Amino acid sequence: MASTSSDRVLRPDNGQRHPLANALRALAMDAVQQANSGHPGAPMGMAEMAEALWTRHLKHNPGDPQWWDRDRFVLSNGHASMLLYALLHLTGYDLPMSELKSFRQRGSRTPGHPEVGHTPGVETTTGPLGQGLTNAVGMALAEKLLADEFNRPGHTVVDHRTWVFMGDGCLMEGISQEAISLAGAWRLGKLCALYDDNGISIDGAVTPWFADNTAARFEASGWRVIGPVDGHDVDALDAALQQARAQHDQPTLVICRTTIGKGSPAREGTAKAHGEPLGGAEIEATKAALDWTAAPFTVPADVAARWDAREAGARAQADWQQRWAAYAQAYPTESAELARRMSGQLPEGFEAEWIAQLAAVQQRAQTAASRKASHNAIAVLAQRLPELLGGSADLTGSNLTDWPGAQAVRGGEPGGRYINYGVREFGMAAIMNGVALHGGLMPFGGTFLTFSDYSRNAIRMAALMRQRVVHVFTHDSIGLGEDGPTHQPVEHAASLRLIPQLDVWRPGDETETFAAWGMALAQTDRPSALLLSRQNLAAQPRSPEQVMAIRRGGYVLSDRPDARAVIIATGSELALAMAAQAQLDARGLPVRVVSMPSTSVFDRQPADYQRSVLMSERPRVAVEAGVTRLWAAYGCCATVGVDQFGESAPGPELMKAYGFTPEHVAQVVAKAVAHAQPQPASASGHEQ
Amino acid sequence: MASTSSDRVLRPDNGQRHPLANALRALAMDAVQQANSGHPGAPMGMAEMAEALWTRHLKHNPGDPQWWDRDRFVLSNGHASMLLYALLHLTGYDLPMSELKSFRQRGSRTPGHPEVGHTPGVETTTGPLGQGLTNAVGMALAEKLLADEFNRPGHTVVDHRTWVFMGDGCLMEGISQEAISLAGAWRLGKLCALYDDNGISIDGAVTPWFADNTAARFEASGWRVIGPVDGHDVDALDAALQQARAQHDQPTLVICRTTIGKGSPAREGTAKAHGEPLGGAEIEATKAALDWTAAPFTVPADVAARWDAREAGARAQADWQQRWAAYAQAYPTESAELARRMSGQLPEGFEAEWIAQLAAVQQRAQTAASRKASHNAIAVLAQRLPELLGGSADLTGSNLTDWPGAQAVRGGEPGGRYINYGVREFGMAAIMNGVALHGGLMPFGGTFLTFSDYSRNAIRMAALMRQRVVHVFTHDSIGLGEDGPTHQPVEHAASLRLIPQLDVWRPGDETETFAAWGMALAQTDRPSALLLSRQNLAAQPRSPEQVMAIRRGGYVLSDRPDARAVIIATGSELALAMAAQAQLDARGLPVRVVSMPSTSVFDRQPADYQRSVLMSERPRVAVEAGVTRLWAAYGCCATVGVDQFGESAPGPELMKAYGFTPEHVAQVVAKAVAHAQPQPASASGHEQ
Repeated sequence: MASTSSDRVLRPDNGQRHPLANALRALAMDAVQQANSGHPGAPMGMAEMAEALWTRHLKHNPGDPQWWDRDRFVLSNGHASMLLYALLHLTGYDLPMSELKSFRQRGSRTPGHPEVGHTPGVETTTGPLGQGLTNAVGMALAEKLLADEFNRPGHTVVDHRTWVFMGDGCLMEGISQEAISLAGAWRLGKLCALYDDNGISIDGAVTPWFADNTAARFEASGWRVIGPVDGHDVDALDAALQQARAQHDQPTLVICRTTIGKGSPAREGTAKAHGEPLGGAEIEATKAALDWTAAPFTVPADVAARWDAREAGARAQADWQQRWAAYAQAYPTESAELARRMSGQLPEGFEAEWIAQLAAVQQRAQTAASRKASHNAIAVLAQRLPELLGGSADLTGSNLTDWPGAQAVRGGEPGGRYINYGVREFGMAAIMNGVALHGGLMPFGGTFLTFSDYSRNAIRMAALMRQRVVHVFTHDSIGLGEDGPTHQPVEHAASLRLIPQLDVWRPGDETETFAAWGMALAQTDRPSALLLSRQNLAAQPRSPEQVMAIRRGGYVLSDRPDARAVIIATGSELALAMAAQAQLDARGLPVRVVSMPSTSVFDRQPADYQRSVLMSERPRVAVEAGVTRLWAAYGCCATVGVDQFGESAPGPELMKAYGFTPEHVAQVVAKAVAHAQPQPASASGHEQ
Repeated sequence: MASTSSDRVLRPDNGQRHPLANALRALAMDAVQQANSGHPGAPMGMAEMAEALWTRHLKHNPGDPQWWDRDRFVLSNGHASMLLYALLHLTGYDLPMSELKSFRQRGSRTPGHPEVGHTPGVETTTGPLGQGLTNAVGMALAEKLLADEFNRPGHTVVDHRTWVFMGDGCLMEGISQEAISLAGAWRLGKLCALYDDNGISIDGAVTPWFADNTAARFEASGWRVIGPVDGHDVDALDAALQQARAQHDQPTLVICRTTIGKGSPAREGTAKAHGEPLGGAEIEATKAALDWTAAPFTVPADVAARWDAREAGARAQADWQQRWAAYAQAYPTESAELARRMSGQLPEGFEAEWIAQLAAVQQRAQTAASRKASHNAIAVLAQRLPELLGGSADLTGSNLTDWPGAQAVRGGEPGGRYINYGVREFGMAAIMNGVALHGGLMPFGGTFLTFSDYSRNAIRMAALMRQRVVHVFTHDSIGLGEDGPTHQPVEHAASLRLIPQLDVWRPGDETETFAAWGMALAQTDRPSALLLSRQNLAAQPRSPEQVMAIRRGGYVLSDRPDARAVIIATGSELALAMAAQAQLDARGLPVRVVSMPSTSVFDRQPADYQRSVLMSERPRVAVEAGVTRLWAAYGCCATVGVDQFGESAPGPELMKAYGFTPEHVAQVVAKAVAHAQPQPASASGHEQ
């Protein structure tokens, strides 16, 4: 059962017996060669694994890649993209040969790494290693929770599996441990990962840097481990997958001993097979060795017919459709709810309700930390949105991400809507991506803002994949105090704002926090990060129009006739800006206060709205307890911020020491006014 | 041997028998109470572990915290900082009781989490979980490599151990898997980690989210596992540590079954013990239960005397000093070299040599990808700097981080200067931090820039700790081409620049790459990130003065009399800016080209230098293939950049499609000139 590869034996292979697998090999070689770029080794090595799974076990319908109850297939080693494209093409998805011929070319549906939403049949965007496996854990969890909630005796409408292909790179990444640990704890019996154990990574034969006993490692996390099996023996793989499907209480790892670049006389079993085209001569030699005689980008009709999964897929979906119809008749409420959930739409009337909610929150004018305001928002949301799937990376009491009556997700128990992720920020973020990709549940999760660093690439992936995932990042500045610089985010708000397609919110009081939550859920095509304070924030007065204007990301919170400057403030510094304004009033220097809870959203507003808020003819001063670099893009000529690491001390003392006092802000503004020159229009953010 | 905690039995304890451990408990309770903030539970739970290690095994000299051959102690669960401060105080480090009384207060030497360089005896800054353990792997590796290199028969001058305390939080973090996998593969026999297995994390009893068999998991990575032992039985712990010290070929894990908050009648064994003061009444009850009668912040003289390690420490160091003197006599060259290495200084004359090297590189005017230029620089550096310890996260052939004759670090073999980290970016970065903290070796490591996301918090930690670590980040923009948006960094250069105390370089040709390498090594108090291209970059002409000016981070590369605009360019866009300048010349629009390989370094230049380079009275246009937001801080009124995710396509095609052509840059500049208004002085970066 040992999974180390030192005792590996490269077994001879009789290519002729594997025309289906060899079709994958041939297409992978041809496409990589044509692109003069790509990764032939992994597709060639995993060809039989793909044949066994896709022709004998995977439940899918190429004619309807959106069929809810399809199995999910995740290619966690995403550089093997040509394997997936070849599979999608051959089984009958809308991915014609012309797309394979334009592999890695601009505008094609066959990019270098698989991209969800871009290519039919691709379930998640992979490439950054370890995350595909972790997405798959989220998918399998979503399936389980929806099955628990919606299936009824005699009516099994949610019943699919999640399959993963992964390589040693995925297993070396630390996130894989977070994923397997949680999958084991949750006993995700319908998750099956096939490990392409080829003993080779880019730097060579892996044993000097990857000597783990992988079987023992997975067993230590509660997985069932099958194998090693010969990864080039379709029947052996088939038997292993059969075994995996018989398992209900543990996730399964199938260790598949393979040879990278299998079939290539000169390259197989070498790191050189990984990331470059084989070259024309070696492709010829390989095809000859495999007895593959078809022309490039051509598949013999009999082989193509054996791959074609359209009829079988349509039948499978039709069977399910019958079950669904019966379910819809027997359980009209449940079926309508599940249909809504899977559509990703909020309940009818939700937006109007939430607007009323905002008005009520504004009315009660409660002083609260924005993390507490978020807690209050979650409590309201959870009553209305049963699809909410909350959690925290072991900081529930600090992030305040739970709600009254939230049932914990627990291994071996049905249902649950709250996840104790343990101290696993990256895993949490990538699992949330998987849940969102699966559909039917709306994931959010909490940690301290400073540890958004740990999960950063998964946040980026959510943005790239345009998935609605909500990150609750509390303890959002030096204001958290005593925990010190390791825990005090100074560059994090700014650096998250740099990620395209991510909405970052730093609300200034409870109303803005509720507005941010509402916006985060309403944006179905992007993730959001809510940056929340540990410390209390005073409620700000607002007219109903101002309450609505929060949803524009930036708005005038408090104006003065003939305002001579603009203070732009976010989050915990909003009240400070208001206090500075009052001081400046007393000095006879009227200024406008702009609240800017979300630069991301403000940046999407029409230019004339932006100009009307920012008053480009007046000097602007930004006030935010974080690095100041980005504010120049909003035409700020001065800032009150934190361009250094913080230190351990009580929060209020620290804020004062770092200049976050009304006096200091007023002084900076007064100085800016004194030095003011007309601002060129081009210095305002919206025109960058 | 199972390490799950379900079968935990809270054993009764007889406090009176443990006055040494109880002194730690009392001080931790008192300090947290006084601060009204902090974490009493972990120090109280680990008190006997600390007593066993610090009174019976740890080799250290409180009188000289910088003694090279001391054991390293890493508190990976850094929130237990009061345990460490109490230990440092009691054993005789320069940390008086007054410092313990000002725990977590501004200006104290007792911040919320331990900070290296701030408190004598603290070896690394911890708090972000999992990284302390990983730093320790780096320290143990450094010790081994230096011992291999410098010890001689009969002369053992490098011979110390690395000890780690860690909790379940560290083990849940994925980075721990990267660390234990490498420590096992490298067979670091002098590394010993003590696992504070208390079964409790912040969200409660851990089994629902941390059900791993930890013993089996470590054994799967080649560790020797001792225990579980009773973590409150000093003799049992002592025996386990003795066993660990007898181990030479494997790292050791000692599983210590403990009770969080041990001794507190109401809080022990509960999550509530973790992160808040016990309160006056509970402290009284606890002290009564422990039979601890001393006043707060007071330690009975006999207990203090038993803790005092100054004499023993001085003796230990004196013994070593004798061995060192003998070694220095027998091996004068080696001892001088080791002394230099441990001082962190470059060899005498290095800077002058490197300046000559720069001139030679400039002279040869070679077109090369900057990753290849870096490869060339490393080859030269490795000949001169035997302390270089290179590596890559399984991308050696792409990052080009190796050099001719580089010996690989391999488990069970002596020496080595090149590390195949496997696909473990975060682990690599935190191990490099540990190597740098240990001293004697100069770590650098490579991955793709986009995967700096994975290692981001460890990069931040290097900056916070002011450690010289060099990150070689290749494939630095959409210019990498076909691998697509998962692999194309667009926001990464900008977001790294936001980390305080980190130098970011994006060199534009081979000379700038060599200059960046020289600067990165010369900066002993900060990490550097080198952002390097996959694609070829043309060499730029420079005068000797211009070559030297590279080291200012930004400089005028090509000027024109009466220049009417400034183009600021970095990295692969430098040649493009020069081409645009030529086009503008042809149009009769003279412009200056400023090369800005490092905004971080440029920001530290005197304001008048900055102004002289940026010409504040002229419109400025930044050209960089990444997000544009930061350039407004340098007074740029227009940019040519990439404010969106990239896509999969050949690099040159992509660059063209995204506007990186001389024509388009020239057009943007011409438009900026046409719209130019006088720039207010306040819009320039240096005054932000």
